[in-house]
Amino acid sequence: MGEYGEKRTEAISISWKPDRQSKIPLYSQIVSYFSEKISSGDWVSGQVLPSQRKLSELFEVNRSTIVEAMDELASLGMIESGFGGGTRIANDSWSLLMQDKAPDWQSYIKASGFRANVPTVQIINHLEFEEGITRMSTGELSPDLMQLDLTRKVLSSLSSRDLFMNYPDPLGMPGLRAALQAHLREIGIDAPLSCILIVSGALQALQLISMGIVQAKSTVYVESPSYLGSLNIFQSVGAKLQGVPLDASGILPWMIREPQSNGCHSLLYTIPTFQNPTGCVMPVSRRKEVLKYCKENHMPVIEDDVFRDLWLDEMPPPPIKALDQSGSVVYIGSLSKCFSPGLRLGWLVGPESVVQRLADVKMQMDYGVSVLTQQVVEELFRSGLYYTGVNTIRQQLRERRDLMMRLLEKYFGDLAEWNRPAGGFFIWVRLKNRVLSEQLFNRALKEGLLILPGSVYDMGYSSSLRLTYGYLSAEEMELGMRRLSEILRDMNRK
Amino acid sequence: MGEYGEKRTEAISISWKPDRQSKIPLYSQIVSYFSEKISSGDWVSGQVLPSQRKLSELFEVNRSTIVEAMDELASLGMIESGFGGGTRIANDSWSLLMQDKAPDWQSYIKASGFRANVPTVQIINHLEFEEGITRMSTGELSPDLMQLDLTRKVLSSLSSRDLFMNYPDPLGMPGLRAALQAHLREIGIDAPLSCILIVSGALQALQLISMGIVQAKSTVYVESPSYLGSLNIFQSVGAKLQGVPLDASGILPWMIREPQSNGCHSLLYTIPTFQNPTGCVMPVSRRKEVLKYCKENHMPVIEDDVFRDLWLDEMPPPPIKALDQSGSVVYIGSLSKCFSPGLRLGWLVGPESVVQRLADVKMQMDYGVSVLTQQVVEELFRSGLYYTGVNTIRQQLRERRDLMMRLLEKYFGDLAEWNRPAGGFFIWVRLKNRVLSEQLFNRALKEGLLILPGSVYDMGYSSSLRLTYGYLSAEEMELGMRRLSEILRDMNRK
Ligand SMILES: Cc1ncc(COP(=O)(O)O)c(C=O)c1O
Ligand SMILES: Cc1ncc(COP(=O)(O)O)c(C=O)c1O
Repeated sequence: MGEYGEKRTEAISISWKPDRQSKIPLYSQIVSYFSEKISSGDWVSGQVLPSQRKLSELFEVNRSTIVEAMDELASLGMIESGFGGGTRIANDSWSLLMQDKAPDWQSYIKASGFRANVPTVQIINHLEFEEGITRMSTGELSPDLMQLDLTRKVLSSLSSRDLFMNYPDPLGMPGLRAALQAHLREIGIDAPLSCILIVSGALQALQLISMGIVQAKSTVYVESPSYLGSLNIFQSVGAKLQGVPLDASGILPWMIREPQSNGCHSLLYTIPTFQNPTGCVMPVSRRKEVLKYCKENHMPVIEDDVFRDLWLDEMPPPPIKALDQSGSVVYIGSLSKCFSPGLRLGWLVGPESVVQRLADVKMQMDYGVSVLTQQVVEELFRSGLYYTGVNTIRQQLRERRDLMMRLLEKYFGDLAEWNRPAGGFFIWVRLKNRVLSEQLFNRALKEGLLILPGSVYDMGYSSSLRLTYGYLSAEEMELGMRRLSEILRDMNRK
Repeated sequence: MGEYGEKRTEAISISWKPDRQSKIPLYSQIVSYFSEKISSGDWVSGQVLPSQRKLSELFEVNRSTIVEAMDELASLGMIESGFGGGTRIANDSWSLLMQDKAPDWQSYIKASGFRANVPTVQIINHLEFEEGITRMSTGELSPDLMQLDLTRKVLSSLSSRDLFMNYPDPLGMPGLRAALQAHLREIGIDAPLSCILIVSGALQALQLISMGIVQAKSTVYVESPSYLGSLNIFQSVGAKLQGVPLDASGILPWMIREPQSNGCHSLLYTIPTFQNPTGCVMPVSRRKEVLKYCKENHMPVIEDDVFRDLWLDEMPPPPIKALDQSGSVVYIGSLSKCFSPGLRLGWLVGPESVVQRLADVKMQMDYGVSVLTQQVVEELFRSGLYYTGVNTIRQQLRERRDLMMRLLEKYFGDLAEWNRPAGGFFIWVRLKNRVLSEQLFNRALKEGLLILPGSVYDMGYSSSLRLTYGYLSAEEMELGMRRLSEILRDMNRK
């Protein structure tokens, strides 16, 4: 990843422009901007400035304004000519500015305990918003698939109603929790209102769990590969992830060699339904076995069920939570995958003491979920529009999956192996010839194709990648898959 | 606080009811409910059950159903008759159930590093949602003051427009950031879009700062008393708060005895405008002095400016951030106090490297703020409706403040001292005769009056309390203030 991760220290990138409305002269705005970048540590000594012509384009000002600003910066000792031509940030520019003293932010950032995101994930987080990028693996549905009309309908009905706009109840708005209670009952989960917590998406549920019930040195057992493998959440509180093998029916917990004893507070995290990234569905029998194993080991189960409503062939078995009388399972749902990730709305169901604890943690983090979003989602469920929406999405996803299957046959028949997903929108592709998907990632990115290498999920999966059929149009899918196969063939040749 | 804090271990409280639609017999639903409560550790050995009559009322079932359920529970060994009559959770009920083994959740909760909220704050968080409670100190405006019509107007205009419903950009939606950029320019802050981060309220901004740029053993200097004193955020990452004295012009940073040296990464947190709880406004001269002091000590300033738009007499001086050319200040704003806390929308402005870091932390916590809320708030600013709204709120708050001043004169003239706030909605009342506000809190709560004792903000302020004129109606304010003064007089007599 060095190619991307270290970019910042080599060339200066500028997205700022001077403000033409302002009364401050343009050249002096530019001087201030440079000073701030240097004093804040964003730009460091030795970094090369873009050429004057480039700067005048970037800032949309005359060349003469740039010359004026550069003269001033040079006379302040902040920039200097480089040896091989070009202009650089001067050697002692920072200490010069430090006479107008700023904190050393970089050292604040480095000293804090929280881990930066996995570098590949950070890059992807940013690239997904850039133009000219073809998102072949993204974790969200295409805007075309999202039922915007339904959301508009809900907004319009809310616009003529009583609204609640105060701080929400620590557990979330009672009306929304009641609507979700009914929704959960449909899939076999019978939960009192006091055991349902509204959260800002499934990711926040995991974050609350890591802060509220996990201790440093705990082990979190996860499917190998698993979505959790792409996140730092549990590692940030000092816990460690341990991969557990999967077969076609899902995780095999009895393969855990020596489960940590009770005192160490281990957890099992599973995505039993349309697993991310493998697409695997756990049958009822395995669900029972997993629950039994965890109960015998006094080990909580975190069940992440965000894909459930995107079944394509037949309804999946009930959640593990529905089989659990003992209070061993904490269940997580979300609207992100099946309706809209932008709503940032999810729910967590667990024993009352756990829910209370996590609600307290949440109150300390952000005082709860936007009540506007909560009221929209309540209406979405009450009106039944949610079900109308997922129904439509499912139909379209079925066609998309079938297209993807044809494209894989056509372009990857001899290059890779894959499964036929029964739900969700991911395909897990295992490359033959031991091609490293990180290398494929870099090569593909040069042509604007963004894929997710399997190593992000688990270091053991360096020859796999995740693809989606939920995002691109049919033409883009065909184009992307063809191009990707060509790149792969080219790599195989070398 | 013992009275409230320990309630849970004494009597069992039940809000659950059996489901009459379900095919499972009522008595057996009750047995399952009891088993779950016991196995999850919510109910512990020795706790007394409500009487059978009470239970039949609570569950809305016949007495005979209760008898059937109790018989079953007794024969399972889970309940037993108490010595002084009544029925209790049996001594070894938990271990009996543990043959159907659940995790020991309480020990998971205890082992995790995250601190529970300050007990008084936890109690208040819950009581604020209970009926029959008069909220005399609450941190939000009355629903009457919130400009619901304006929000409805925005919803209606969004309902016929293009909506964005995908995952948001890590910094927040560009359109909203541009709208806020214009808003910030009005108060003297000139920030590029890449230095503005959208957050779920000011509290989350503080949370991100504590996780992203604070290290264990850092010192966070705060006004004494300060809003931050009522939160655990910084302590939860191992930093410590240190109070710094205030005078009428705000914090006196040079009273910090030995500022931590650079290596230890200390911070200064200040609320210069309508400080919570004192209402203090820092004049420009002090703002400059504070900034100068912090720059000289290479110490970042966290400026919390959530009350700014609620000025009642005259516009407050520009933010410290507007005076800062060096990149020393991280600025925080929010809609919670001036428009609606339920929206959970705030913003943070700082040097690009800090904003990038905090955006990365936020991506790991919840993937960003609800895009629905972001689009509503963008429209609120673009249409100017936000300014219409705060204008109306200000007018009404002025009348409310003046009423509060009259009530204080009338009922508390000889009991306390206070200031006349120039903005916001809090009054800081210092009790004479060394009455402890914690005691007043307990006495008042017995009569349904909920106040915030000063000790929550800082242990040194045990004879102060915060009151609000932003929540109750005129009648409720008069009634509450009279009753509170009577209680206080009564306590003074004893
Ligand atoms: C298995 C799984 N859980 C949780 C999430 C996060 O969902 P949310 O957007 O609700 O936070 C994702 C999204 O990628 C996921 O794939
Ligand atoms: C000074 C101050 N900062 C921040 C907050 C939290 O605001 P928000 O609701 O935006 O998280 C409050 C609310 O009580 C406050 O008084």
